[in-house]
Amino acid sequence: MEFRRLAGPLDADAVEALVRETGVFSAAEVAIARELVEERMTRGAASGYEFLFVEDEAGLLGYACWGPIPCTERSYDLYWIAVRPERQGGGVGRRILEAAEAEIARAGGMRIYVETSTRAAYDPTRAFYERCGYARAATFDDFYASGDGKAVYLKVVG
Amino acid sequence: MEFRRLAGPLDADAVEALVRETGVFSAAEVAIARELVEERMTRGAASGYEFLFVEDEAGLLGYACWGPIPCTERSYDLYWIAVRPERQGGGVGRRILEAAEAEIARAGGMRIYVETSTRAAYDPTRAFYERCGYARAATFDDFYASGDGKAVYLKVVG
Repeated sequence: MEFRRLAGPLDADAVEALVRETGVFSAAEVAIARELVEERMTRGAASGYEFLFVEDEAGLLGYACWGPIPCTERSYDLYWIAVRPERQGGGVGRRILEAAEAEIARAGGMRIYVETSTRAAYDPTRAFYERCGYARAATFDDFYASGDGKAVYLKVVG
Repeated sequence: MEFRRLAGPLDADAVEALVRETGVFSAAEVAIARELVEERMTRGAASGYEFLFVEDEAGLLGYACWGPIPCTERSYDLYWIAVRPERQGGGVGRRILEAAEAEIARAGGMRIYVETSTRAAYDPTRAFYERCGYARAATFDDFYASGDGKAVYLKVVG
């Protein structure tokens, strides 16, 4: 299992495939996941997107994407974290998340926000964040759609 | 007092000057206000930014900027609303906001979110939203900086 920070030319395809494979993201969300990699490739650090890729012999195993929130001093958004379905539940996600948190703290970040859905399909996702030390900071009912709210989690680091 | 939806080549400068003149936004925020106009000019509706400009004989009197929140069905962010300082308090802001809300509702929007600071300098801003029917949906302490939290307001329309 190898960690890599730099996005390469194959990562847009690999991220798109991985995010789609998880089965929890809409087509529009899959497209956005891909776009963030392309933005990073085109604009570098000015894109505001930082990445961590984790690979094994079979290719991309998981990744995280985060960035500083504009006009804040030390707040960061964790935009994406995903692990290949057959490798979920084995601690890979937690290792990726903790590595991302360490990078954020090293860059001076202190507050990490992550948004997810209140739908039942995301119960495991919310449980994952809670196990990793994130606390629910806000809930926006019907945010994504009627009956599909947004939950915002926060972890203070550094 | 004339309302105009289409951004023109002079609006980036006019918006930058107006937002700076209000005295409540940081240099980084002023730069972002300008960038959104430029994004709209370059990419059109695909930018995701909609505008409403209000003018009188002296030029730009105020404006609002909003857009659909990606991956939501009917949620919108109100990114900016500003009125030239000497014309504040006379109902111009409320007219701009109500006109923006009507445009959002016409486009199928239902939930309008607006974010602002919890700092005392923004007391009038928060009071303005509350008078206009917005309710506090969430508070994120220390979001912008230590002691400078983010308040999120919500109005359901349409």
